[in-house]
Parts: sequence; structure tokens; C-alpha cells
Amino acid sequence: MVKENIPNEMTAIVLDSYTGVNALRIERRPIPQPGPNEVLVKVAATPINPSDLAFLEGLYGFKKPTPVVPGFEGSGTVVSVGSGMMGKYLNGKRVACVSQARGDGVWAEYMVTTTSLAFPLDTSVSLEQGAMSVVNPLTALAFLTLAKEGRHKAIVQTAAASVLGQMVNRLCKSEGIQIINIVRREAQKELLKEQGAEIVLNSSDPNFSQHLWDVCQHYQSRIAFDAVAGPLTIQLLKAMPSHSKVIVYGGLSYEPAQAEAGQLIFEGKSIEGFWLTTWMSKKNFLQSLAIWQRAQKLITTDLKSEIRMQYPLNEAQNAIKEYQSQMTGGKILLRPTL
Amino acid sequence: MVKENIPNEMTAIVLDSYTGVNALRIERRPIPQPGPNEVLVKVAATPINPSDLAFLEGLYGFKKPTPVVPGFEGSGTVVSVGSGMMGKYLNGKRVACVSQARGDGVWAEYMVTTTSLAFPLDTSVSLEQGAMSVVNPLTALAFLTLAKEGRHKAIVQTAAASVLGQMVNRLCKSEGIQIINIVRREAQKELLKEQGAEIVLNSSDPNFSQHLWDVCQHYQSRIAFDAVAGPLTIQLLKAMPSHSKVIVYGGLSYEPAQAEAGQLIFEGKSIEGFWLTTWMSKKNFLQSLAIWQRAQKLITTDLKSEIRMQYPLNEAQNAIKEYQSQMTGGKILLRPTL
Repeated sequence: MVKENIPNEMTAIVLDSYTGVNALRIERRPIPQPGPNEVLVKVAATPINPSDLAFLEGLYGFKKPTPVVPGFEGSGTVVSVGSGMMGKYLNGKRVACVSQARGDGVWAEYMVTTTSLAFPLDTSVSLEQGAMSVVNPLTALAFLTLAKEGRHKAIVQTAAASVLGQMVNRLCKSEGIQIINIVRREAQKELLKEQGAEIVLNSSDPNFSQHLWDVCQHYQSRIAFDAVAGPLTIQLLKAMPSHSKVIVYGGLSYEPAQAEAGQLIFEGKSIEGFWLTTWMSKKNFLQSLAIWQRAQKLITTDLKSEIRMQYPLNEAQNAIKEYQSQMTGGKILLRPTL
Repeated sequence: MVKENIPNEMTAIVLDSYTGVNALRIERRPIPQPGPNEVLVKVAATPINPSDLAFLEGLYGFKKPTPVVPGFEGSGTVVSVGSGMMGKYLNGKRVACVSQARGDGVWAEYMVTTTSLAFPLDTSVSLEQGAMSVVNPLTALAFLTLAKEGRHKAIVQTAAASVLGQMVNRLCKSEGIQIINIVRREAQKELLKEQGAEIVLNSSDPNFSQHLWDVCQHYQSRIAFDAVAGPLTIQLLKAMPSHSKVIVYGGLSYEPAQAEAGQLIFEGKSIEGFWLTTWMSKKNFLQSLAIWQRAQKLITTDLKSEIRMQYPLNEAQNAIKEYQSQMTGGKILLRPTL
């Protein structure tokens, strides 16, 4: 192991207020010190995820005191550790790193996190793929797990052409689960069809409701993973057979999820939510390890993320705007070392 | 047992189309014959329930082919039975009777139902109270059961001044469960306060949201029974702590239930429905019997319904309009023998 030469200062992206991308600026700040059971990671790559956009706008599950460094996940090398066994084990290793609920995130040259949020990367996994190996891959595995726990032979998903949606498609194909994909644009439909998706419905089509009802009834699909919310949830509940549920994991419509009283009462349908943080918090250490190892194994195949563009930190605003312009055509990475 | 003299014809209330109270008419029709495992009940009294109003408007869980006799519950005497053991046991008995999912209901001089929907009344229970001993009392017991199964020490309920809401208040008092009542009018608040309710909030008050949040947080109430739906469900979810749920059992607002994406995702909150038919269908024979016996025991105390007025069958339209004008001031009974 080569001892890293750690400078005193670093470049970081800082959010001043929860008003979106324009509230970001570049700052030079001291490199943080890892405390007990913490590690300092020299960041190699960090993606822009939908959850990051929600965070910038104050729509995420929590707000941190500002100014704050955003960025939920990334990859890099552990270059310094605080006291504790796990830190010693991780020192010098290539890791995927996730930001803590308190304190700064990954969009910086260096970041500190707790040892339980630094996951060693397999030697076969590049730092680029490793930077995107937590949020989407574990969410996709969680959806699959929920589908299998409920013995669902068919699932519905909205925003199906997203990077996550594409992963869920590949996982379901591998597992023999029928998937009913909903997208908003014809180009997204073509993208998924090219990738081998069998059922892709465009919610802009005039016959969408009828087609959705037809396929949900045919395949008896009783679970929908929904990133949109708003009135679409009523349509999902309407299309699915009795005792179905919509699991909301995003709010792209910026409207409340909705369910007709009759759907809830007489048809036994329901609406709930999914948050990866909550789902993982219910797993014990061994379960978490098994999920992580499975994700690493699949990260170059079913759980691979396409990379569209890479930007240095000081072009973060442009990077985010590029991402917002098209969220389904591959990921955007920030590269502090570029 | 005195052998009843059964005439050939009877008076019945008939619904011609699912367009509400004005689609009702009085008809003379043949008295139905009980088939195998069925009983013929000479109806003594039958109430108007919110579920009946929903049925008349086609908003209930199912529609029956019209013309059809409405009326979900009532009481009377079994005067004739088809083949089968249970019929023999019930013959001549005073019963509470519930209409089947197919065929005619209770708003008539006679009605046929299956033996499993005719419940012997305790000798201490009058035919008037017996006529109202299924829908509201079993729903109130179901709510209490759900609260206790979830180890809830406090519950929220909307439409709290309804006959059902008053029963739930008395049951919760007996069981030591804190109840947070929501009503829409000051008079309803006073009614519940007079009956000893401790917490009653008027949703028309300007500080309603804040007060609701205060009490839900103080008592850590995580379950709400809601007859209203619409945007009120967002307020309920907002006021209650994380991992709360709203159980919708009515749609008085005629609007969809709503939940913000963030409430579902980050706070683990959810919306589901309650239908007595579904709940009871999951109970086995002994469980159902125990619930029925408990309801009979409490029917003159915690589960008592106040009677406001009684009408003969041929004044059913007036009776319903009177009920619609004020649904919290005691029940309206139809009395075929008046």
C-alpha cells in the first residue's frame, strides 16, 4: 500500500440553499478528518442521481444544515482512517462510498463517511461503475426482492426507461418475472424495446388506460413500482386486480399520489412508499453483505449503468443541467480528478 | 313455535337504476322462497346506513342487476326455511339478517338470505336494536381489533360524530385507548364532548392542522380511520408520526384519497382501505361467532344506536331524505309492520 500524500485543501461543490442547481458553487475548503470508525475517501467518481436533484430542491427525506456538500454516492480510495477495526481493514482499499445522514456528501475531492457506508469494490469493478453501485443497483435488487417475497409473477413499473428501470428489466428477465413497463415518450419505448423489453406502454397514448388494464389483468400483476405519483397512481390501481398495491419511490409529477376510496375499500388496494435507506436499515449485517456481494457480482451485467458524459467538479452545474435535459440516456459522472 | 301465516304478496322498496333516492319506488311482488341453506325472514325493522346511500348511487363495492330491493341489514323472525341443518335451527328465531351479495335486500316485508347471514338475537336485544347490530357494531369492533393488533395506544377517526364514530368512542373509552376525533361542525363537537369525548377537533377551524399535529405527536397516534378521503388524508398523514397509516372506509368527500410522495417514501406512511365484508371473510366460524356474541353483549351499551325516527316502507324516500339531512343525530328505521 502506497501512503497517499494528502494535501490540506480540496475543491468541493457546495449548496447554499435548497433552491436547486443554481444554488451550487465551487469552494476551496479544508480536507475533513476521519473520526472514530470513519474513513477519508479520495473521490474518483460520483454520479448525479434523481435523489441528488430532489436533495438540491429540499424535496429529499431530510435537509442538512447549509452550506453543505451534496452527493449521495461515489467511489474512491480510502486514504486515511480514524480509530476502529473496520477502518484498519478498509485502509487503502477501493470502495463505493455513501454519504452519512449528517454532514457533507460525495461531490468533492475528498469525503469522510462511516465505515459502515464504505463498501469494498471487487477487483473486477472499475471505479466508474463502482461509483454507481449503491443507489440504483440496490434499489433494483430491493424491488426484485419485494416482488419475490410477495410471490409476484408480474410487476408494473413507471419511469421504466430510467437507468434504474433498465436494471429492473434485466433483473426480471434473468428471474423470469414478467414486467409491464410504462414510459412517457415514444423514444423511451423504442429504447426499452431495443433492449428486449416485451411490454412497454406509453402513458401518452390515447388507449393507454385500456392497454394497461388488459396486460395487468392478463398477467395478474398486483404490484407497481412508481416514480411518478399524481393521478397516475389511480390509473395503476384501476388497471391492477384486487388486493394490488402501488409502491411509490419517486414524485416526478410533483403531485400527491391518489387512490379512489372505492379502490381502497372494496378492492383492497393500497399505496405505500419505498426508501432504500429504510429498506436497508431493516437488514442485519449478514443480509446487507449478501445483498452487496450480489450487487457487485451483477454490476458489469444486469446492474451495469451506461455512462453518457463525465465532467470535472468545476463544471457541476452544466453537468446537472445536461442530466436534467435527459434522464434516461445514461449517467453523468463528476470526476474530481479530471 | 307458532306457525306463521305467510301471504302470497308483499310490499317492497325497489331501486330501478343507480341514480339515488329518487330512483326508488314501492312495489307489490311475490314473497320469495328460501332455497337450500336459506331462510325467509319476516322483516321487523331495517335501518338506513351510509352504505345504503352509496349503494343507491352505484358507489358501493358491487352493483346488483336492477330492479333490486336495497337494504344491507335488518331484523325479523325466521318464518320459513329451505333444506339444511342451520335452517332448522334458525326456524322461528328472532334474527339479525344481512342481504346476500346477489339478490334482494332487506327493505321489504320479507327477505331471503343464506343461513350464514342470519344471526340469532339475544333475548335481551330488541328487534329495533337488533336491526342495527351488524354493520356499525361489527365495524366498530373491527376498528378496535385492528388498533389492538397494531398495539396502538391512540387512534384518529374522522366523521367522528356518526353513529359508528360514537360507538368507537365508547369502545375506546372502555378499552383505555386514546381517541382523537375529527368532525366538521361545531354542533358535532359539542355532541361528542357531551358524551365524554376528550379530544374533538373541528376540521373547519383555522388552526385545525396545527392542533391535529400537536395531539397526534403527543399521543403518538399512528392509525387513522377515515370516512372522508380527499385532501384530508394528506393532513392526517402529515399530522401523524412516521410509519403511520390512514385506513379509508368511506368517501364522503367524493374525492380521491391523497398522499404526498415524500410522506410515502421518506416517512414510511401508507393508505389502505377497510371493508367489513373483506374483514369478516377472513374470520373462521368460531372467530365470527365470538365477534357476534361480543357485539350482542354490548348492543345495549357501547354499541347501542340511538333511534331518531321510524317510518313505514311507503315513506322510504322521505325517510332517506331525513337521514341525509342529518347523519349524526340517531338512526332512521324503516318498519314494514308500521
